[in-house]
Amino acid sequence: MESSIEVVCCQLAPVVGQFEANIELVRDGIAAAVRDGAQLVVLPELATSGYVFRSEEEARAAAVSVNGPELTGWAAEAARGSALVVGGFCELGEDGRLYNSCALVDGEGVRAVYRKIHLWDEESTWFVPGSECAPVVETDLGRIGLAVCYDIEFPELTRGLALNGAELLAMPTNWPRGWAWDSDVPILTTLARSTAYLNRVYVALCDRGGSERGLDFEGGSVITSPDGRVLAGPPSLPGVAGAVLRATCDLTTARTKGTGTRNDAFADRRPELYPADLVSPPRSSASPSQPAPAP
Amino acid sequence: MESSIEVVCCQLAPVVGQFEANIELVRDGIAAAVRDGAQLVVLPELATSGYVFRSEEEARAAAVSVNGPELTGWAAEAARGSALVVGGFCELGEDGRLYNSCALVDGEGVRAVYRKIHLWDEESTWFVPGSECAPVVETDLGRIGLAVCYDIEFPELTRGLALNGAELLAMPTNWPRGWAWDSDVPILTTLARSTAYLNRVYVALCDRGGSERGLDFEGGSVITSPDGRVLAGPPSLPGVAGAVLRATCDLTTARTKGTGTRNDAFADRRPELYPADLVSPPRSSASPSQPAPAP
Repeated sequence: MESSIEVVCCQLAPVVGQFEANIELVRDGIAAAVRDGAQLVVLPELATSGYVFRSEEEARAAAVSVNGPELTGWAAEAARGSALVVGGFCELGEDGRLYNSCALVDGEGVRAVYRKIHLWDEESTWFVPGSECAPVVETDLGRIGLAVCYDIEFPELTRGLALNGAELLAMPTNWPRGWAWDSDVPILTTLARSTAYLNRVYVALCDRGGSERGLDFEGGSVITSPDGRVLAGPPSLPGVAGAVLRATCDLTTARTKGTGTRNDAFADRRPELYPADLVSPPRSSASPSQPAPAP
Repeated sequence: MESSIEVVCCQLAPVVGQFEANIELVRDGIAAAVRDGAQLVVLPELATSGYVFRSEEEARAAAVSVNGPELTGWAAEAARGSALVVGGFCELGEDGRLYNSCALVDGEGVRAVYRKIHLWDEESTWFVPGSECAPVVETDLGRIGLAVCYDIEFPELTRGLALNGAELLAMPTNWPRGWAWDSDVPILTTLARSTAYLNRVYVALCDRGGSERGLDFEGGSVITSPDGRVLAGPPSLPGVAGAVLRATCDLTTARTKGTGTRNDAFADRRPELYPADLVSPPRSSASPSQPAPAP
């Protein structure tokens, strides 16, 4: 296992309804990053489809299957440099339903797919939420945790990925442009730094840029280190469409959680004292098949 | 219940070993804040004792009991304005042990005491960690969650306080001065913003300033709103000793967790999918009296 890897976020601006162009845009982005030495390439959420759908038909027309030629194309580019690619796509499931998914792809093909479990706004009109928690994928480069956009607002998920061994969280994102203040760092950067720091992991968050049907995106991609520093990004705000962020990340530093001579971010946890309703009732309870009620 | 309250963080610089002077410093700080209209006064961690002890004896000499005259003095000042005070103190427990505690005091006396459950660095030399999770206290001003300093690095605790109904987290803090970068906001501000935003609560974090026996403190007090904005602070860094931060906080805005027309920070949670080891094994397991092993 290599100790340091070259991580690149390809912030792109796909265009809803222009499927072929988006496929090409993404593939060109991966190709350029790999050519320039990227070992892990992170793409935005829904990179192949765009975001602001108007109809079910439009979403379906932009959907691809895990085994289709589009992700195979990512693998072909990854193979040129023994790279990994993590990117978001509109997935047509084998069940005929649509998912807001992200895939981890290497030179041989799709290694893992995660279907976003926290859907934002109109996404729930087009997509079915995933039914499995975000995975940590063991790769030749290290352990990569997957999460998508709004997932970053659920510390149960990001903490869980870290507890499950993730050394880097790869987070395809489509962040609608937020409020900005003269004196404040964007909240997306703040969340990425905080997530990295609290869990002592790298965060490679690849946002999209541009606008779609009146919705402006933040273009707020950022790469942060396990001590909460910003290593790259965000591109000059607001709304830069395309940008390439690059950082060298030594994932071995994310394998230990020591934070001082006597402290450790994980060993210092007091799980026996935390509220039980952070997670579901145990599966062994009376109604194991029922999801926990929302608080 | 009032809809908006005046929150004041009294950033002070107590001096270890000068017990009487610290008691007076804190009482004067509360008195001035209440006189100026504060309804909730937040003080630093270990405000009455200082932080960098050299010996068990020194820590014991600075310890006070919950029923002692020191906290009664806080109550006397609070009573002048129907205010609440949250502050840190070195507690001599009825069991003879020392705790790094914080108290919530109103005009009638001590309403709640929290013994810090995550101890930082040498604190574990002097203090026994608490054995109960941080509480949420129902008050006339709203629901106040208590946490101390390093606790902010445990999202299980801060999320738990919010799930338990906290509308504002009052966080006495003694933050050793961190690295600073030209372009980055301090990590303490970042954590406060993120904690507030993710949980849609106010955070009133009162740090201390100054130096003690070679340890510089950040002086990074900050008050943040449920949408992640900085309302007040941090004082000009590094290391401002004394500072008074003030913000008007409408706690009713922290009672609902809606984040958009279709989204809700709490209802959107998927607790049935989060890793079970975020919290302990259920109490009904084979060894209910055993704490969960650290991960």
